[in-house]
Amino acid sequence: MADRSIVDLFGKNLSLINLGLPSFGKDLADQGVSVVDASWQPPAAGDTKTIEALTRFMAWPEAAHRKVNEANALAVKTLREAQPVILDVRTARDVVPGMHDKLVLHAGPPVTWERMCGPMRGGVIGGLLYEGLASTREEAEKLAASGEITFEPCHHHASVGPMAGIMTASMPVWIIENKTFSNRAYCTLNEGLGKVLRYGAFSEEVLTRLRWMRDELAPALSTALAASGPIDLRTVIAQALQMGDEGHNRNRAGTSLVFRLLAPHLVDSALPREVVARVLRFLDGNDHFFLNLTMPACKSAVEPIRDIPFSTVISTMARNGTDFGVRLAGLVDRWFTAPASKVDGLYLPGFSADDAALDIGDSVITETAGIGGFAMAAAPAIVRFVGGSAADALRVSKRMYEISLGEHPVYQIPALDFRGTPTGIDVRAVVEKNVLPAVNTGIAHKEPGIGMVGAGLVVPPVACFRQAFQTFVSVYEEQAKALG
Amino acid sequence: MADRSIVDLFGKNLSLINLGLPSFGKDLADQGVSVVDASWQPPAAGDTKTIEALTRFMAWPEAAHRKVNEANALAVKTLREAQPVILDVRTARDVVPGMHDKLVLHAGPPVTWERMCGPMRGGVIGGLLYEGLASTREEAEKLAASGEITFEPCHHHASVGPMAGIMTASMPVWIIENKTFSNRAYCTLNEGLGKVLRYGAFSEEVLTRLRWMRDELAPALSTALAASGPIDLRTVIAQALQMGDEGHNRNRAGTSLVFRLLAPHLVDSALPREVVARVLRFLDGNDHFFLNLTMPACKSAVEPIRDIPFSTVISTMARNGTDFGVRLAGLVDRWFTAPASKVDGLYLPGFSADDAALDIGDSVITETAGIGGFAMAAAPAIVRFVGGSAADALRVSKRMYEISLGEHPVYQIPALDFRGTPTGIDVRAVVEKNVLPAVNTGIAHKEPGIGMVGAGLVVPPVACFRQAFQTFVSVYEEQAKALG
Repeated sequence: MADRSIVDLFGKNLSLINLGLPSFGKDLADQGVSVVDASWQPPAAGDTKTIEALTRFMAWPEAAHRKVNEANALAVKTLREAQPVILDVRTARDVVPGMHDKLVLHAGPPVTWERMCGPMRGGVIGGLLYEGLASTREEAEKLAASGEITFEPCHHHASVGPMAGIMTASMPVWIIENKTFSNRAYCTLNEGLGKVLRYGAFSEEVLTRLRWMRDELAPALSTALAASGPIDLRTVIAQALQMGDEGHNRNRAGTSLVFRLLAPHLVDSALPREVVARVLRFLDGNDHFFLNLTMPACKSAVEPIRDIPFSTVISTMARNGTDFGVRLAGLVDRWFTAPASKVDGLYLPGFSADDAALDIGDSVITETAGIGGFAMAAAPAIVRFVGGSAADALRVSKRMYEISLGEHPVYQIPALDFRGTPTGIDVRAVVEKNVLPAVNTGIAHKEPGIGMVGAGLVVPPVACFRQAFQTFVSVYEEQAKALG
Repeated sequence: MADRSIVDLFGKNLSLINLGLPSFGKDLADQGVSVVDASWQPPAAGDTKTIEALTRFMAWPEAAHRKVNEANALAVKTLREAQPVILDVRTARDVVPGMHDKLVLHAGPPVTWERMCGPMRGGVIGGLLYEGLASTREEAEKLAASGEITFEPCHHHASVGPMAGIMTASMPVWIIENKTFSNRAYCTLNEGLGKVLRYGAFSEEVLTRLRWMRDELAPALSTALAASGPIDLRTVIAQALQMGDEGHNRNRAGTSLVFRLLAPHLVDSALPREVVARVLRFLDGNDHFFLNLTMPACKSAVEPIRDIPFSTVISTMARNGTDFGVRLAGLVDRWFTAPASKVDGLYLPGFSADDAALDIGDSVITETAGIGGFAMAAAPAIVRFVGGSAADALRVSKRMYEISLGEHPVYQIPALDFRGTPTGIDVRAVVEKNVLPAVNTGIAHKEPGIGMVGAGLVVPPVACFRQAFQTFVSVYEEQAKALG
């Protein structure tokens, strides 16, 4: 303790709030002064361009702010009202808008073959082999680089794809309809873990499984769905959240519930028994089967907020393994990108962080719609997997309420007394508070052809959120001022 | 505030601990004194006979206390090491020890036809009709009262039964083996909710379902189990606890997981497809199907602690709707009973507390083995059902650690950072702290023939725990003192 304390200096007892480093507060506490450390940080973590945009935004007239708030209220209402149902499983060529034989859809924002990361290249190679457009890796790489193949984001075709997210014309896809707004979303079927196309593997084992999924699994699922009628995915997801899933990295409950719903109809069908048995074993053997249903459910929920003028709500987050991309409801189809992040995760035996590709996949659509990392408190097993505690899981979800404008009416978190999941991410809050969306994810090997190496948590790059907000302010400024 | 404060009286600042009513503390706090209210209550809630027994027990020599602690450590170790597996489904007559055609097993401690509650009488009537021993309700009641039928507790025949818990000779039963100790436990199959035998209903609808379960469901399950081999129930229960079940009032996850395990084998089998479809629909339609598996799993776990001299661990809790009964490992087969409690619950439309039977059923074996109410924190949906919060669910489980001697190695509670469930109830702690086991349960109509009217939480009567402890002290006192 100092010879002469600050109390002597001021001649009276002090109660202080410390805005500085915690050590400042400790010095004072050591002198017997009552100190509270404020957990304060400058707006936008001190980023000058964002602070400038925030300042300009704050100066908009009252009527413009009202307009933004109304637009955002509409976006949240739209997200809350989504009612995704499973309609069918069909071939992408026949149902996905704009799909054709020379088109390869991929995860994330647009990316050229030249800029594609290893696992996405692996997925493309596998896709071209699967389509019979190439018969060796070398041929496939040559074709991919030739300009004959068009690469476009799944998101531009009402679709989503986990990890590399490769979808080609003859792949079977789930058709999910958002009943409230009559829009549809599409997603391939989940292949399981390990050596799978979505993690960039393309060996014969991978292709054989994809062909079996096309020839036997997909028709069987379609048959079962024809008998069951549309399956209410909103209810199934709501139940899964009450059973330890968060719909992104944990899907055991959802997979179990869908299994229960489909099995009796498969048995009723005219399908050979051995086919039914193989299909059921495949589903039972893959606890991530449900991921490829939560993803298009969430995609179908965000599609209706694609174009809401003046809204600062995030309508899309997606990664291609090279870039992380964001879109805003108020800026429609414009992507804002920044280099994809490293994933903080745990690795399968034999692999380490050195083997890891960067953050990849459209699965962050789950967080965009308010589940996944945003519902982490429903699935403490995930945090534990990377060394955290149940309290950490609660903290993650609670933090996400700070950047979300609403709560979901039926997706609820038991540990938070069935509070609705945080829904409708406001890019203003993200950049001003510098609180980034919490994202759960798998980890692919950085080289093509290898596959999954781990799973973990990832913090998206702040730069693309800042760009999106700055652009929003610039794009709307004139209209906003005209309202004053 | 008083004119003259207690501070003036003592002439100095006081920091007080209030052992009295909270209002005593408030008076002092109003006078500016720092007061902490101790949440204190006298041992055994002031019950003089129990305090006397506790005093005598405390006076036992050191060596006797060591012997009690060793016995209890063995009991907890035995409970922790249980490895229940599903072996088969067979007819009670062929597998349940001592079962014969004129024997009716029932839930809870022994009870005569005369003292049986309404729903248990209803179950007996249904059982006799089902066995063809009577053809009308009146005939069944006459036969039951005639002395020709023997009534014995399920617990005396290595069995357990939910609610009325009626088991007759030609009913199919699950065979559960505790692999570690090679003992077996038995339980009927769950009929679903509503009008069912275990809630005292015995209409033609109930009997038709029971016959179908005997003729079609049971052989189908047996066929699937023959193909699957023994199913590791310990693992399935552990997973279900991580998926929002507590294994007593909530069994949705466990039912889903067992469904997934059995379905492929049913499809593989030579059973007609329409049989397989009916069986799967029955399972899918009944989220409590798994209850009749957690119960014998828990029964198989507690059987090996039936006779552990000097142990104060509770080996059985059970209710017959008239009495609540308790047995201790140290007193082997001796029942201690007290009148069954009212259930604090919610009622199905059209029913109220006036319609309710008292607490009934062997399902409290789940709490005895450390799941059910003891794992409430894993299933906050249950507390919510009766108007509580997630925090209440945590509080219930945390409280149960105060009366339990150990924690389960694989049954874990996610919300408590995967802490093992409280396992091995110590009757000493129950009576000294006056903390009663937390029990979840269904509610039957008090009249025979009606069925389920609600579900809720129940506090067992303290009297039987006090009797058990007092008797334990008397029975062992001489031996204990001889050790000094």
